[in-house]
Amino acid sequence: MRFVNFEQDGRKGVAVEASGTMRGLLEGDAGYPGGLQDLVSRGAEALQAAERVLAEAPVVDAGTIQYLPPIERPGKIVCVGLNYADHTKESPYEQPDYPTFFPRFSTSLIGHGAAMIRPRASEQLDFEGELAVVIGSRGRHIPRDQALAHVAGYSIFNEGSIRDYQFKSPQWTVGKNFDATGAFGPVFVSADELPAGAKGLTLVTRLNDQVVQQGNTDDMIFDVAELISILSEAVTLEPGDVIVSGTPAGIGWARRPPLFMKPGDVCTVEIEGIGTLQNKIEDEAALA
Amino acid sequence: MRFVNFEQDGRKGVAVEASGTMRGLLEGDAGYPGGLQDLVSRGAEALQAAERVLAEAPVVDAGTIQYLPPIERPGKIVCVGLNYADHTKESPYEQPDYPTFFPRFSTSLIGHGAAMIRPRASEQLDFEGELAVVIGSRGRHIPRDQALAHVAGYSIFNEGSIRDYQFKSPQWTVGKNFDATGAFGPVFVSADELPAGAKGLTLVTRLNDQVVQQGNTDDMIFDVAELISILSEAVTLEPGDVIVSGTPAGIGWARRPPLFMKPGDVCTVEIEGIGTLQNKIEDEAALA
Repeated sequence: MRFVNFEQDGRKGVAVEASGTMRGLLEGDAGYPGGLQDLVSRGAEALQAAERVLAEAPVVDAGTIQYLPPIERPGKIVCVGLNYADHTKESPYEQPDYPTFFPRFSTSLIGHGAAMIRPRASEQLDFEGELAVVIGSRGRHIPRDQALAHVAGYSIFNEGSIRDYQFKSPQWTVGKNFDATGAFGPVFVSADELPAGAKGLTLVTRLNDQVVQQGNTDDMIFDVAELISILSEAVTLEPGDVIVSGTPAGIGWARRPPLFMKPGDVCTVEIEGIGTLQNKIEDEAALA
Repeated sequence: MRFVNFEQDGRKGVAVEASGTMRGLLEGDAGYPGGLQDLVSRGAEALQAAERVLAEAPVVDAGTIQYLPPIERPGKIVCVGLNYADHTKESPYEQPDYPTFFPRFSTSLIGHGAAMIRPRASEQLDFEGELAVVIGSRGRHIPRDQALAHVAGYSIFNEGSIRDYQFKSPQWTVGKNFDATGAFGPVFVSADELPAGAKGLTLVTRLNDQVVQQGNTDDMIFDVAELISILSEAVTLEPGDVIVSGTPAGIGWARRPPLFMKPGDVCTVEIEGIGTLQNKIEDEAALA
């Protein structure tokens, strides 16, 4: 199943995508099954029932909608740093033997097609193409061999990072949480449509059609099942929580000279079997 | 105004506290004004209207309720590390010239009187008494001289930390987010009841009646107004967001020998003009 959360003329909607065609319903329409975050919280049967309803719904013209993040207000967004060896080598860090978890807050999220904002505060807006994992069922102390049963599905994330702010203190939080820097979507793909753990998928980030990152989800140091199992040793995972699983090498900050994104640039992240997330960079408006 | 969020016989309730007496209503009662998070989101007038209603409500016997965190599911919980010079000196860090923001997720929260859980994974459960700031109105790019107008009120936090997990990777996230380690409450005190920015308040943490931390909110390196102003340069703050403003010296991990909390211990954090947050330590139950 492939779902899209969107907004049309100020109303929220949800669609299924099949063979490149979206069919969907809007809030208030008869049969509207609820938004994707609500469906994920209600479990696999709710998603399946929604798919059956939406498969008969009117075609949605992509040109008339704004894509929303597949999950708009996750209970938590846990990102993973230093999870591809080639990326750790370009960072100032040694490879830790435990995942480097850090947060995003939902105020940083934007959907596919929305402007990613370079803030007034900095010119160091950098890209990070990543696989996003959406949790489908609650759990704590989840063994590795049961971890994938807690995954509802996958999506794509561009973990836009303001590098100078990331390194202003020992914790990266602010550099990872500027408003409108976390692009998420466009599509939520249920786990059954992809290889177990979303293994073996090619991930390519392009800046203005130039390939800047090329990796494979097989190269994660901690794979999806391990991330879930390790995190849940400490933290209860809940439906709608999102794990953003790390980025391969190629980030702009590590290049000489650095390659940061600037207004007018277009950044895309493509993951095999999921789709392509695209965002144009804009400068934050001047203070009124 | 002093409010308490609570649960009684499985129903949620909200009370006002005056002269040590709580008067409150439960969900479903006539006149129930909504929980505190909802009231804060609706603004100062909603809080004032709720206070008028609750002042006439039945007396609530503290022995019959479970205290809940004043805000149960904040949109974000932003903690501040290294915000008291004496604490930075006992840490492995140099004093950064920018606040060290890191997150808590709401799955880590417990109320006053609830058990703080020492997890199976570690014996290094440490205390951190802190002032919590509850945001009352939305804002971005908030100037320092307007920042305090965005504060709804204050409460107390015991930022229970699992030290070995805090230092397993370059980011502290997991060590700060074990389930049931973040004690928050008991009371939410509206900003107008305290000095501007909650300045000049004595903060004392006790472990089994021994004073282990004694500080004053005047000694914050970045005060409440600065924290709000600096964070909002990057991030939109929303009603119900919580800033946990840092801990003074005395943490158990920095002592020789270290002083960690163990089952049966009682930890209290008292802040002048706000109240006392108390939690007993229990071990996590064995796996079934």
